[in-house]
Amino acid sequence: MTHNRDAYSFTFPFRVRYAEVDAQGIVFNAHYLTYFDTAITEYLRADGFDYGAEAEKTGIDFHVVKTLVEYAAPVRFDENVDVGVRIDRVGNSSLTFELGVFGEGQSEPRVTGEVVWVYTDQASHETVRVPDRFRRLADAQN
Amino acid sequence: MTHNRDAYSFTFPFRVRYAEVDAQGIVFNAHYLTYFDTAITEYLRADGFDYGAEAEKTGIDFHVVKTLVEYAAPVRFDENVDVGVRIDRVGNSSLTFELGVFGEGQSEPRVTGEVVWVYTDQASHETVRVPDRFRRLADAQN
Amino acid sequence: MTHNRDAYSFTFPFRVRYAEVDAQGIVFNAHYLTYFDTAITEYLRADGFDYGAEAEKTGIDFHVVKTLVEYAAPVRFDENVDVGVRIDRVGNSSLTFELGVFGEGQSEPRVTGEVVWVYTDQASHETVRVPDRFRRLADAQN
Amino acid sequence: MTHNRDAYSFTFPFRVRYAEVDAQGIVFNAHYLTYFDTAITEYLRADGFDYGAEAEKTGIDFHVVKTLVEYAAPVRFDENVDVGVRIDRVGNSSLTFELGVFGEGQSEPRVTGEVVWVYTDQASHETVRVPDRFRRLADAQN
Repeated sequence: MTHNRDAYSFTFPFRVRYAEVDAQGIVFNAHYLTYFDTAITEYLRADGFDYGAEAEKTGIDFHVVKTLVEYAAPVRFDENVDVGVRIDRVGNSSLTFELGVFGEGQSEPRVTGEVVWVYTDQASHETVRVPDRFRRLADAQN
Repeated sequence: MTHNRDAYSFTFPFRVRYAEVDAQGIVFNAHYLTYFDTAITEYLRADGFDYGAEAEKTGIDFHVVKTLVEYAAPVRFDENVDVGVRIDRVGNSSLTFELGVFGEGQSEPRVTGEVVWVYTDQASHETVRVPDRFRRLADAQN
Repeated sequence: MTHNRDAYSFTFPFRVRYAEVDAQGIVFNAHYLTYFDTAITEYLRADGFDYGAEAEKTGIDFHVVKTLVEYAAPVRFDENVDVGVRIDRVGNSSLTFELGVFGEGQSEPRVTGEVVWVYTDQASHETVRVPDRFRRLADAQN
Repeated sequence: MTHNRDAYSFTFPFRVRYAEVDAQGIVFNAHYLTYFDTAITEYLRADGFDYGAEAEKTGIDFHVVKTLVEYAAPVRFDENVDVGVRIDRVGNSSLTFELGVFGEGQSEPRVTGEVVWVYTDQASHETVRVPDRFRRLADAQN
């Protein structure tokens, strides 16, 4: 399940902010979920997707139902990292993203994770089928 | 402008979270604004004010227009502090809160600040007169 | 793996801060990890454990190696929730906490999760055996 | 005291993260202090200054003693903004930064602020003279 940098066709860069490190001088565990959320937004933007506008137009929106983070090695203040994003699985109504955090010039991830979305109709509150554009995006990358 | 603990008839307690300290082991400067925002919410709740419900009912809401923080001494991980809140000034459409952060058993503040709100009609976007309840609250405390 | 409120002998209360909610008015997914971290600190404190002091005295410290959050239902601004903490498993050098977030008067969790620590000698950087006090704590609760 | 974009020879770009907006869909007031802190780091880096290394080498370090933010207009999720940084005043031991947050293609700031540092000898805890490099930097920009 853990992929090296080569497996990611999309990465997004972050430079660690002082506000993000804890008393050990390393990124506090919760902030990786903010990096993941931001990197997914940029991954979808790179494919031409504007999720605010889409949700409004279609009346369907996603909810985060699961997040997983595995911390292999710390990331320090001021470090540049790249966060790789790929779609790991597309279910009927769920979309699973896989993420990896890479130090500069490094192939093995320091931190890896998973974020699972479920698509829901905002009026009926029922789950709906994942839009085809994400199915195409998943197919294109494998 | 800086008051001791005695000047505050309302204080709200915080225990510093690990997520709130930086690499020096002290509360990162931005987080005091979160303490201030939370303490003001509790100060108004203690007076029976539910601002979410009020904004919806009356169509008027406030905006934060200014925040000021002065840092006299640091606060460390796991410390218990009390944040005092008082209304400093009521203008025509503005409300100025004064805040002080006190260590356990200490009279002099470690950190002090100011938060200024302006009241606005949500439909017309024009400033409106500060509700009388806040004028009464300000009068009662002095 | 998901327990109801009855399974937790320790819970710690949070009132959702405005700074913690997102544009949907619900707690942003990353902030649950801050709640979890804070609740674990309080759980261990309730057992008489001061981890800052312990780490300094013994030269061993833990690292977070995994976090998992499952979001069943949202939590809104100003809500009071209780976060339950229990030790789920004690391995040789790892400690797994299970967490549940409960609305007021509710038995089923809105959010559940897992946090895994590994104990390490700070000088040699090698993993070490989980201290006996945590083994006793785990035994006591089951 | 409020300058337009032209007055800033250095700006640093931010794209607003979803984690940074509140229930009104706008950047929560505290997060501007994180933007300011990050922008100052980048401003000094652009001048060749690495403050972590400097503090260690020289034994002098700064403390934030004051922050001020004035909010003229909100910034929304996903917006690109530029944060301008300039040195406003150099006192004997204090350094005052002025900051402005600009929307794309806009000359007038949405948000402005001030961050004041004081330089201290880490051993004696006494204030010390601001390093000459900052005096030169201040002179160069005016």
